[in-house]
Amino acid sequence: MLNVGIVGATGYTGEKIVDILLKHPQVRISYVCAKIEKAQELSEIFPKFLGKVDLVCDNLNVEKAIKSCDLVFLAVPHKISMEIAPMFLKADKIVIDLSADYRLKNIEEYKTWYGLAHKDKKNIENAIYGLPELYRERIKQAKLIANPGCYPTAAILALAPALTSEIVDTNSIIIDAKSGATGAGRKASLDFFFSEINENLKAYKINEHQHMPEINQFLSILASKKINAVFVPHLIPMNRGILETIYVKLNKAKSENDIITLYKRFYKTEPFVRVYDAGKVPQTRNVLDTNCCDIGLKVDKNKKLLFIVAAIDNLMKGAASQAVQNMNIVYGFKEDTGLK
Amino acid sequence: MLNVGIVGATGYTGEKIVDILLKHPQVRISYVCAKIEKAQELSEIFPKFLGKVDLVCDNLNVEKAIKSCDLVFLAVPHKISMEIAPMFLKADKIVIDLSADYRLKNIEEYKTWYGLAHKDKKNIENAIYGLPELYRERIKQAKLIANPGCYPTAAILALAPALTSEIVDTNSIIIDAKSGATGAGRKASLDFFFSEINENLKAYKINEHQHMPEINQFLSILASKKINAVFVPHLIPMNRGILETIYVKLNKAKSENDIITLYKRFYKTEPFVRVYDAGKVPQTRNVLDTNCCDIGLKVDKNKKLLFIVAAIDNLMKGAASQAVQNMNIVYGFKEDTGLK
Amino acid sequence: MLNVGIVGATGYTGEKIVDILLKHPQVRISYVCAKIEKAQELSEIFPKFLGKVDLVCDNLNVEKAIKSCDLVFLAVPHKISMEIAPMFLKADKIVIDLSADYRLKNIEEYKTWYGLAHKDKKNIENAIYGLPELYRERIKQAKLIANPGCYPTAAILALAPALTSEIVDTNSIIIDAKSGATGAGRKASLDFFFSEINENLKAYKINEHQHMPEINQFLSILASKKINAVFVPHLIPMNRGILETIYVKLNKAKSENDIITLYKRFYKTEPFVRVYDAGKVPQTRNVLDTNCCDIGLKVDKNKKLLFIVAAIDNLMKGAASQAVQNMNIVYGFKEDTGLK
Amino acid sequence: MLNVGIVGATGYTGEKIVDILLKHPQVRISYVCAKIEKAQELSEIFPKFLGKVDLVCDNLNVEKAIKSCDLVFLAVPHKISMEIAPMFLKADKIVIDLSADYRLKNIEEYKTWYGLAHKDKKNIENAIYGLPELYRERIKQAKLIANPGCYPTAAILALAPALTSEIVDTNSIIIDAKSGATGAGRKASLDFFFSEINENLKAYKINEHQHMPEINQFLSILASKKINAVFVPHLIPMNRGILETIYVKLNKAKSENDIITLYKRFYKTEPFVRVYDAGKVPQTRNVLDTNCCDIGLKVDKNKKLLFIVAAIDNLMKGAASQAVQNMNIVYGFKEDTGLK
Repeated sequence: MLNVGIVGATGYTGEKIVDILLKHPQVRISYVCAKIEKAQELSEIFPKFLGKVDLVCDNLNVEKAIKSCDLVFLAVPHKISMEIAPMFLKADKIVIDLSADYRLKNIEEYKTWYGLAHKDKKNIENAIYGLPELYRERIKQAKLIANPGCYPTAAILALAPALTSEIVDTNSIIIDAKSGATGAGRKASLDFFFSEINENLKAYKINEHQHMPEINQFLSILASKKINAVFVPHLIPMNRGILETIYVKLNKAKSENDIITLYKRFYKTEPFVRVYDAGKVPQTRNVLDTNCCDIGLKVDKNKKLLFIVAAIDNLMKGAASQAVQNMNIVYGFKEDTGLK
Repeated sequence: MLNVGIVGATGYTGEKIVDILLKHPQVRISYVCAKIEKAQELSEIFPKFLGKVDLVCDNLNVEKAIKSCDLVFLAVPHKISMEIAPMFLKADKIVIDLSADYRLKNIEEYKTWYGLAHKDKKNIENAIYGLPELYRERIKQAKLIANPGCYPTAAILALAPALTSEIVDTNSIIIDAKSGATGAGRKASLDFFFSEINENLKAYKINEHQHMPEINQFLSILASKKINAVFVPHLIPMNRGILETIYVKLNKAKSENDIITLYKRFYKTEPFVRVYDAGKVPQTRNVLDTNCCDIGLKVDKNKKLLFIVAAIDNLMKGAASQAVQNMNIVYGFKEDTGLK
Repeated sequence: MLNVGIVGATGYTGEKIVDILLKHPQVRISYVCAKIEKAQELSEIFPKFLGKVDLVCDNLNVEKAIKSCDLVFLAVPHKISMEIAPMFLKADKIVIDLSADYRLKNIEEYKTWYGLAHKDKKNIENAIYGLPELYRERIKQAKLIANPGCYPTAAILALAPALTSEIVDTNSIIIDAKSGATGAGRKASLDFFFSEINENLKAYKINEHQHMPEINQFLSILASKKINAVFVPHLIPMNRGILETIYVKLNKAKSENDIITLYKRFYKTEPFVRVYDAGKVPQTRNVLDTNCCDIGLKVDKNKKLLFIVAAIDNLMKGAASQAVQNMNIVYGFKEDTGLK
Repeated sequence: MLNVGIVGATGYTGEKIVDILLKHPQVRISYVCAKIEKAQELSEIFPKFLGKVDLVCDNLNVEKAIKSCDLVFLAVPHKISMEIAPMFLKADKIVIDLSADYRLKNIEEYKTWYGLAHKDKKNIENAIYGLPELYRERIKQAKLIANPGCYPTAAILALAPALTSEIVDTNSIIIDAKSGATGAGRKASLDFFFSEINENLKAYKINEHQHMPEINQFLSILASKKINAVFVPHLIPMNRGILETIYVKLNKAKSENDIITLYKRFYKTEPFVRVYDAGKVPQTRNVLDTNCCDIGLKVDKNKKLLFIVAAIDNLMKGAASQAVQNMNIVYGFKEDTGLK
């Protein structure tokens, strides 16, 4: 049994990791912690765990965590991860970081988008981006995994086949993204008060969301050239789910069927990416509580325009279940263990 | 034109008062303020007011408020009202207080339920409870109006005809109340985070909500005997609306029609209470954005049990529009001005 | 492997049964059908099943169903079950009926509440009510299981310890129930149109809901006397979840702790009933997607009144997962298989 | 007093027209009808009108309608309007049609998008598109007004200043639109069942929505050249509101401030279009229950890309209140009467 710790167990993502691991036959949750006023039963914080876990959540005690875990999930805000990951790495623990701290390779860019200097340049280099569909082989060897952001997960998977096959104009990518409210984390903020979000719809951080450099870094790698995709996120009055509607120009006329075939082939062996048949596009509920990224495709022949619709559950493939998928890969467990 | 000030203009109730007064032909909003970091256009805080108001919201300046207003609405939390109302009253201004500070006549009870000693006993005595259907004549002369709580408004109006006609067992009253989330005010709190309320349902403060003594004080007056009604509120995943399902035993068998007739007669001249015909009960959307309290009645003959279903919009009849109704009464305006 | 069929696989309950059985190691879904215009892949109807099931849903073909199944779940409306259950029973198949057709023992009552004469009196006698916490032993031998209604499941479990221990006044039971919209099934109806339910709250079928006789039949058995509980359901703008707030008079003063102890003892060995500690009551999200019924208790000493708050997921313990729990019992599988 | 009839009074749009006209001082609702099983009080269909209207809703009786009305609003589905509008026009009544039947000038296009041949070519010619901000002068003389679709209203107003000033590449327009569920009308359909929409998000009719030719017809007129904008609508789990995020390339680099100035100038005298200051974009709640179209603008200098965010209330500026605005213009009433 693998001993696993969860740092940040009181957030939505932390809760989901606990939830998944409870059903994982090869894992024991050996440690949970969070920024918390006083130690509390995890089942008191999340009564759904009543009778299912017997864990006490206290503030992080690194020494204790190191002693009790083989691997830790860091389900904490950016800025925090880069302070604590080095300690776990030094103690030879596997770290799966769900914050943004180890995703950007360029620390100048990190400073620009996250507003502070990076404190752990050394480990950035060795961090592996935890998108199994693209980086599975490297993940197998990883000590530090930078688990992808929710918006980037959908965007990169939606565009990878088109970019690697060079069928699209890389200057033309527009990503109109929509997310449920859990994407913002679990924190007291008037902006996320129920009556501010319910029966309302808004665009935010138009073309200046901090997930943009992450998306562009990986799209650029896929296309082998610098990409600056346009990205506009929207907040939807629902708990969970991301839907991205992506507009991109085709280099030359290509039929819908050809493109669907291309995508199906690209993801042929991937258990968690589902490419839809012609005429169908995913809705967010199709992927609720799953590790799937669903992709639908449509072509406007006259305009040589490709529409890509991608859906994920932001707490699952966009965070917790993808983190567990990465863990499974690192330890050689069957990749869908706990994720069926 | 009456010059009116709104203290606490950035809350949901304050916003609604502004909204209503903008359509009121005999009123000018001459002052708005709120606890705020720095002065801000009201239309910046609530962009729906863009182009409709030209008011700057700053922290309370009592002197300035007194100079510019004939009447002030205090749309602030309890504890705050009793500190500022006396200053306005001393300056001979009319005060309509939407907090709980002047509703309870017994200051011991205030201390018990609100957790601190009352600081303005003097004015409690002269405060008039602003429920026009029961206290219209006194409201006409009032200097200080204690605008009723949202739950009490529905409960008292729902029970008044039954209690004054002595047809029910006063020991048997059970009020199962349900409210949308704006009832909690507009403040950052994890409990009211979107994803904590959406797709969830809970009872809270079971038989210990601070609106209980207010309800019981007025039910007791109506019945001329001490009443301790049972009261259980629930939080519903919607923005606005209160529905109360009330269970009370009949003293002796009485037909549904007799009781409906009794209620219709009781509220015959009231423009804002609508008693439904047999077989019908109100839903919250029937009263959305109105000053109405809708009441439906049903009788279980065998059990001699009366079911009363009452609906109000918590921000309207439960707060803002009832406050304006009270203002209209005090100044002799047509009672439904601005409220149609 | 047990071969299982699902009649009515396109409803919310049918979908949930499929969902659960896909994770059940001892079961194979060998047949699905529903009232449907033309045969369709189940994964086309519910795209979440894409790549997970390879089943075609067509109209019921009893012969085919009998050939391919050891057990059938009937997830169909009442009136339909009593027409098809006899055929499966005759063919010696186990039937777990999720409709109301075999719950009421008194066929006159069936006629009164469901508006038509019962067509299968014979099998009513042998039908076992599938509430494992009360009838586990009989379920083990059952051929025909009447899976409980959603409201009754919560009501009966919430009241069973109090009634069997004779601590409450059986004439005083008031059940104020609230349910999400999936409780109504999946069918086109203006009443369940999104914008009719969203941002609205209503009571319906006040004291005349068809689940009343079911509740009263089983409460009466528990109390060994005729009970006529008051029951008022409400429709809540959310997908899933039932919360029942129950008011009942204590025969004599009893402390909260004594009653909690009584309840904990009653459900001591039950894996799916969780009795809360003093001061806590369940919310619906605590039981979302679980087979749990959570119960919270509170006492008003002065009024000798007991408050019981019970929460279930209407599609799970209120329907699909309870049906699977019953299947597990019949076949001697571990009772929580597929339900963890 | 103008005598006004509403055909289709039981839909969301019809309800809203009644709502608005009840507050209109120069109008009397003299006739209401709808496709209905049997005649019913309007206040029975919409209990919010209890005590406010005394109208009976029956099936359309054209003769009676003609006798009692000077003007009729046709709040009916397409296909129906073109059958009844001619009768009212022949009787010299003013017709404001809220369906799509008189919006497209090209009847071949009508056939393509609405699936049937147009039956009233004659009146198409004289129909005036009721978008006051662009066609006010013509509306003044109109006998037949084609009230704009909800999506087109926002799209055309959002793009008009950019197109008429020729600052954008007309081949580059992408409209990513999001709408609440009332946009689909009030009809029983499984697709609009509460639990199908709640907690779900989907794109639909990707680049093939019937509002596309309407949008393109008017954008083309504004640009004096054929435009084929890309249009993808999404269904949002909320009742009301449309938000459109529009992506369009600038012909040459232009500053955000220049464009905002251009837009503010364009709509300078328009009471119902609000152009936001730099750094701000509208949310749907800013326009809820108003006749406003709010527009926010942002420029990506490097990519020479213009982002336009436009918000309307689909039932108001997108339907009912715009129809009343048109009526006000035709009759020379103050344009904002009933719409403040």
